[in-house]
Amino acid sequence: MKFQITARDPSSKARCGLLNSAADTIETPAFMPCASHAVVRACSPQDIAAVGIQAVMCNAFHLLIRPGSEVICQAGGLHQFMNWPGLIATDSGGFQVFSLADRSDIIEDGVSIRSPLDGSPIQVTPELSVQAQNQLGADMIMTFDDCTPYPCGYAEAAQSMERTLRWAERSKVAHNNPEQALFGIIQGSVYPELRRESARATVEIGFPGYAIGGVSVGESEAEMFTALDAALPELPLEAPKHLLGVGVPAQMIAAVKRGVDLFDCVLPTRNARHGLLYTWEGIVRINNAQYREDSRPLSELCDCPACTHYSRAYLHHLFRIEEAAAWRLLSLHNLRFFAQLMEQIREAIGAGNLGELAARLAAITPS
Amino acid sequence: MKFQITARDPSSKARCGLLNSAADTIETPAFMPCASHAVVRACSPQDIAAVGIQAVMCNAFHLLIRPGSEVICQAGGLHQFMNWPGLIATDSGGFQVFSLADRSDIIEDGVSIRSPLDGSPIQVTPELSVQAQNQLGADMIMTFDDCTPYPCGYAEAAQSMERTLRWAERSKVAHNNPEQALFGIIQGSVYPELRRESARATVEIGFPGYAIGGVSVGESEAEMFTALDAALPELPLEAPKHLLGVGVPAQMIAAVKRGVDLFDCVLPTRNARHGLLYTWEGIVRINNAQYREDSRPLSELCDCPACTHYSRAYLHHLFRIEEAAAWRLLSLHNLRFFAQLMEQIREAIGAGNLGELAARLAAITPS
Repeated sequence: MKFQITARDPSSKARCGLLNSAADTIETPAFMPCASHAVVRACSPQDIAAVGIQAVMCNAFHLLIRPGSEVICQAGGLHQFMNWPGLIATDSGGFQVFSLADRSDIIEDGVSIRSPLDGSPIQVTPELSVQAQNQLGADMIMTFDDCTPYPCGYAEAAQSMERTLRWAERSKVAHNNPEQALFGIIQGSVYPELRRESARATVEIGFPGYAIGGVSVGESEAEMFTALDAALPELPLEAPKHLLGVGVPAQMIAAVKRGVDLFDCVLPTRNARHGLLYTWEGIVRINNAQYREDSRPLSELCDCPACTHYSRAYLHHLFRIEEAAAWRLLSLHNLRFFAQLMEQIREAIGAGNLGELAARLAAITPS
Repeated sequence: MKFQITARDPSSKARCGLLNSAADTIETPAFMPCASHAVVRACSPQDIAAVGIQAVMCNAFHLLIRPGSEVICQAGGLHQFMNWPGLIATDSGGFQVFSLADRSDIIEDGVSIRSPLDGSPIQVTPELSVQAQNQLGADMIMTFDDCTPYPCGYAEAAQSMERTLRWAERSKVAHNNPEQALFGIIQGSVYPELRRESARATVEIGFPGYAIGGVSVGESEAEMFTALDAALPELPLEAPKHLLGVGVPAQMIAAVKRGVDLFDCVLPTRNARHGLLYTWEGIVRINNAQYREDSRPLSELCDCPACTHYSRAYLHHLFRIEEAAAWRLLSLHNLRFFAQLMEQIREAIGAGNLGELAARLAAITPS
């Protein structure tokens, strides 16, 4: 994987780039919707390509459980399995494993959990996660990290961060596919000194890209940016940087200004399935009775399939009857908004007016 | 609405035709998937047009409950509301009303039920059903009939058939939109003499088209065809004829041979959502473990989005994780099969070889 910086914002650390993998070249800053189970929920891969999505984030843990990484390997990897030519990242599954585990289930070797499918015991280790990710064949893969919970005392956060470092080393050793870029994950909770140490030591191990984990887990926005401000300056300027699990537009712009290139989040699609739609004219909550007879599209400024073909009244009806067709159309709308948002961020970096875009977003999106 | 017969099978009563409404001209024999709530479940109107569907059957009762016929009227009618340029039929809702009612809830005036949405009392009468259908603005609408249950004794079936005749007269009087063709519905349960009388008397009232109701409600296939054989010869040769609720391919061909032109059924889409796929190579039950690593498309002979883009292994995975994306792709596959089936039926009528098509279907579809 190659990363080439193509433009820089004169007044911040924001930059545009081209991220080149065996599969595809994508423009950064970029947003990857979550395709945890090798599908963006309610949408086909063909659908999301049509609304301008360049990359997706799958989840090694979910895919290890079902259909099994060997099934996807046998199909020729995730690109073939999903018939998705764009970039694919896989998360190591740390976050999901930890949501199923007690802290007491974590030992130095890895994490013991029970399969959410059949209750059978599984031990997930850095080696197992990286081996699964090698089999899955994504372009970008992640080290297996100890996801620090929130809130977390300093001593525990330090332990967790140090374990993440040891697991990052083991992940790097286990990694055996040079076509895939293994990103190191930074932890350290809300403590700037731990974040700084995590970044420094992860860079010492050495990865082609870095991801910031353990954010958007309940901490305040100020705490998140304090953590980012501590970690990011320690990372190599020329390396691509991914902020895991952040999908609030204003936060994404603030992170871009700090030098972040890549994002993934379930928010646009989950919000769509709950009837919250982003438009450049403001938020639309499609369940509201005011849309019952509204013949206008969700947005006059959007060219997604929902806005091109259907009225708010029809989408309101489909949403009210809990139609899968609504989840798809509304998800595609929000994904189109995010694709347009990233285009606008890239243009604003080139034009040096990210501040204006941030102000425009603040007026139309919920905090 | 105009109906023009364009070809006749020399060895049966099968015929091809062009059914022309204000909205569209469709080729018959034709199959209409059910879009009961103004949507074919899991699919967008744009989706189903792309797989060759020409017409859909909506349900006046469901739409009366939600979003309300006045909402759809205000949108400019169902064509505008759904943004569907093809032909639209509405069922009068008799079938659904009766599934919610006891026989004791039926009085001469209509049927008293409680709204499935909020439990409020509703009295559905022929006038209310036709008024709702006038507001909905479909091209083809149906008289409000007393759906005879199965099994049903002769005396009760006779009473129900006679009430259907009185309601057909009231439906015709209530109908006030000359752009819409009101079809009369034939009842009479499994009794040939009642079916014959129902057909004769309905023709005496006079409608531009006729529908056979009260079939596919639990009776044997032999009983259904006995009923058809009694009713169909009494109907005008030149009128379009619709068989309500029948979607088993072999039964459709047998009905076409008796002079039926139109069908509607939930089967192709419901079967798809349950993982049963029709292909010209045979039935595929996509949940079966044998498809876990099968890289072939569902069918080599199909050009639907599922077959064009995805493998059986991927569809098996999406189905197993209960993904709405699977319901859509599999529904579109089955709808494409039904569109192709109707094309083949029309071609076979022209070529005089419906028998060969019937034999081919018998080998690939479940009875």
